[in-house]
Amino acid sequence: MALIVQKFGGSSVADAESIKRVAKRIVDTRRAGNDVVVAVSAMGDTTDELLDLSRAVAPSPAPRELDMLLSSGERISMALLAMTIHSLGYEARSFTGSQAGMITTADHGSARIVDVTPVRLREALDDGAIVIVAGFQGFNRDTRDITTLGRGGSDTTAVALAAALDADVCEIYSDVDGIFTCDPRVVPLSRKLEVISAEEMLELAANGAKVLYIRAVEYARRHKVLIHARSTFTSNEGTYVLGEGMADPRLAKGEDMSDVIGKEEPVVAGVAIDRSQAKITVVGVPDVPGSAAAIFTRVSKSGANIDMIVQNVQSASPGHTDISFTLPKEQAPEVAKLLQAEHTELGFQSLVHDDQIGKLSVVGAGMRSHSGVSLTLFDALSSNGINIEMISTSEIRISVVLGDTDLDKAARAVHTAYGLDGDVEATVYAGTGR
Amino acid sequence: MALIVQKFGGSSVADAESIKRVAKRIVDTRRAGNDVVVAVSAMGDTTDELLDLSRAVAPSPAPRELDMLLSSGERISMALLAMTIHSLGYEARSFTGSQAGMITTADHGSARIVDVTPVRLREALDDGAIVIVAGFQGFNRDTRDITTLGRGGSDTTAVALAAALDADVCEIYSDVDGIFTCDPRVVPLSRKLEVISAEEMLELAANGAKVLYIRAVEYARRHKVLIHARSTFTSNEGTYVLGEGMADPRLAKGEDMSDVIGKEEPVVAGVAIDRSQAKITVVGVPDVPGSAAAIFTRVSKSGANIDMIVQNVQSASPGHTDISFTLPKEQAPEVAKLLQAEHTELGFQSLVHDDQIGKLSVVGAGMRSHSGVSLTLFDALSSNGINIEMISTSEIRISVVLGDTDLDKAARAVHTAYGLDGDVEATVYAGTGR
Repeated sequence: MALIVQKFGGSSVADAESIKRVAKRIVDTRRAGNDVVVAVSAMGDTTDELLDLSRAVAPSPAPRELDMLLSSGERISMALLAMTIHSLGYEARSFTGSQAGMITTADHGSARIVDVTPVRLREALDDGAIVIVAGFQGFNRDTRDITTLGRGGSDTTAVALAAALDADVCEIYSDVDGIFTCDPRVVPLSRKLEVISAEEMLELAANGAKVLYIRAVEYARRHKVLIHARSTFTSNEGTYVLGEGMADPRLAKGEDMSDVIGKEEPVVAGVAIDRSQAKITVVGVPDVPGSAAAIFTRVSKSGANIDMIVQNVQSASPGHTDISFTLPKEQAPEVAKLLQAEHTELGFQSLVHDDQIGKLSVVGAGMRSHSGVSLTLFDALSSNGINIEMISTSEIRISVVLGDTDLDKAARAVHTAYGLDGDVEATVYAGTGR
Repeated sequence: MALIVQKFGGSSVADAESIKRVAKRIVDTRRAGNDVVVAVSAMGDTTDELLDLSRAVAPSPAPRELDMLLSSGERISMALLAMTIHSLGYEARSFTGSQAGMITTADHGSARIVDVTPVRLREALDDGAIVIVAGFQGFNRDTRDITTLGRGGSDTTAVALAAALDADVCEIYSDVDGIFTCDPRVVPLSRKLEVISAEEMLELAANGAKVLYIRAVEYARRHKVLIHARSTFTSNEGTYVLGEGMADPRLAKGEDMSDVIGKEEPVVAGVAIDRSQAKITVVGVPDVPGSAAAIFTRVSKSGANIDMIVQNVQSASPGHTDISFTLPKEQAPEVAKLLQAEHTELGFQSLVHDDQIGKLSVVGAGMRSHSGVSLTLFDALSSNGINIEMISTSEIRISVVLGDTDLDKAARAVHTAYGLDGDVEATVYAGTGR
């Protein structure tokens, strides 16, 4: 008998009909002879509606109370899901984050899991019950207060439960079939990956891919949890995310691995695109030590999340240099204003704020052993007449910033150039991938 | 410094504006130098909406999960209320039923409070915080599960908190000014009572008065908690409910009690009316020992709540008797069907099911010492041409069943006959009194 952890997001439990569909899916897993533990998010837009309510009564809500408020959303969905399973004739018990032993730091709104003590979950499993746990929430031992884990928290809940219960697999359900080589809405010939390494998944997620959250993948890698990203709407196999040293599940299933390994695996796992960033260029900064530091000290004080930084060797004006950086679009106006206000102290000539950009990243663990991977990228872009504005690289990733109108064309060209195209067009769902 | 417990129902916190108004009221109480503990219900129709959701997924929801679901409603309202108070510059902390130490039996949906261990509430009060507690909910120590207290549960929560914290008063807010001598929508000259005894309040509540719930009043009487029923919309004094041996708060305020006591206090405290019942008459039951028992054994097995029972000495048919009883309207068809099905075994002649009835009750502790109290009732009804269908009495109450079209006229006549009429018409609110 296997122990399977399943995670269902808000769109999978948005209304009574969706909840019934999910309940049937859970019961099918149980009927197949597995123990099942489910982490569930709040229904549909519940969390946003609760946030709206809180803003209507308090401009900046007390963090402890905001967590108390938001954590009620998962209690609703988990109780409904448990009673639906019950009505299908299976024993099911729901547990809040604190009942499930999800112990976190006291950082309200972005708490981290420090320990999981699933005593009550084990009891329920021993009693033959299906276990439903509220995603996204935990509690702090010192303050005895309820906390929430922040964005993507339910994925993290699922992975942490899988780790604590030593589950065989953690299935993360969404409205897409798995991890694709690129976003099928942009690149129709995107292929679903059967497996992807955790490190590649992390790079893709950090650079715009939306199917899995970074924190959940990191937690899974650290605790050797096998993630299976798959669709709520089909019974197709999705994509397995493999940490280092973890067995390929296709092997475990007795497939002939020569089929798997024998294939000419592409060097690149996938292409991620990201339209959420803006670029600020500080033109004509005095080319002396400390100039860049002075600028980024200011920027970091504003709390902005800088992604890429590029400094030109030579500005148009001798003795000066230009510094460009990217950051989330919504943070850019504030940062531009802040730098402009210290224009004189920082000694630069002008500031250019551009939010008509897009970032394209090529990710592949094979880059470590294959040289010339970046050449394919630059060739594909230049032969399509696409201009590169910025470049940055990591060990297994190359990212370029382009004009946003070039982004889709660039993604298709690069996808083809790396041999990622599938034979048929991928099915595109109306959803967002979450 | 006094400790005041305040209870606000769902209609008092139905939306952001209402929550802000309640928050201001709480802050005013705190600013006046009191410690404040608040019990709050779920917002407006939240509980009904959650019930609808549960019915949409499960025809008869598992009780444990239903309690988990319903208890989320108060978490939303209490967190919103706490953050609103916070934004007004006062420290406030919200606590769930289990965090507040509200320990109950394990009867989901109708749990009874067995102990209150308000350790965290005392800590919060010692820190100078206003304490907000989720009404209607608790938890069971053995199962460690969340429970709900059933109808009127938030009133009981407030009274139980007042008892456990030894509060000076438990203020129960609603959209009416207090306890009236009758429903002002029916009897315009109804007067607000300054005080009422707990035993009178219990009789009124049990017979149709809707301002306070029976369980809360019983709990208050047993634990000597002073209840003050008052309005969310005015700062007027409402009605104090006094248990035996409790000091009249008007005395404590240094009023000249000769004013209070010197008044010719009416023998009767108030008149309650109730349109929720139906009457079933079993005609021609064999007048032998055991006939009535056979009938009521059947009825009680159906779970129906019988209120009044009347048996005629002589039926139209010799050697037979007629038995009438009242029960909630919604239970009557089921019970009538059940008796009809056992028609032969029970040996009666026919069955009359009448849901066009109303019950009028006159309640007054003074009935104990005053004779002839019932005469006033019968005179008032007969001089208005109103026919009495059934009569029942307790030590401090007389109830009569009338045709429902006579009920309002009867209430006005009886109210006048007992000298209860005020000098001016009472203000009638759109609300229901809760």
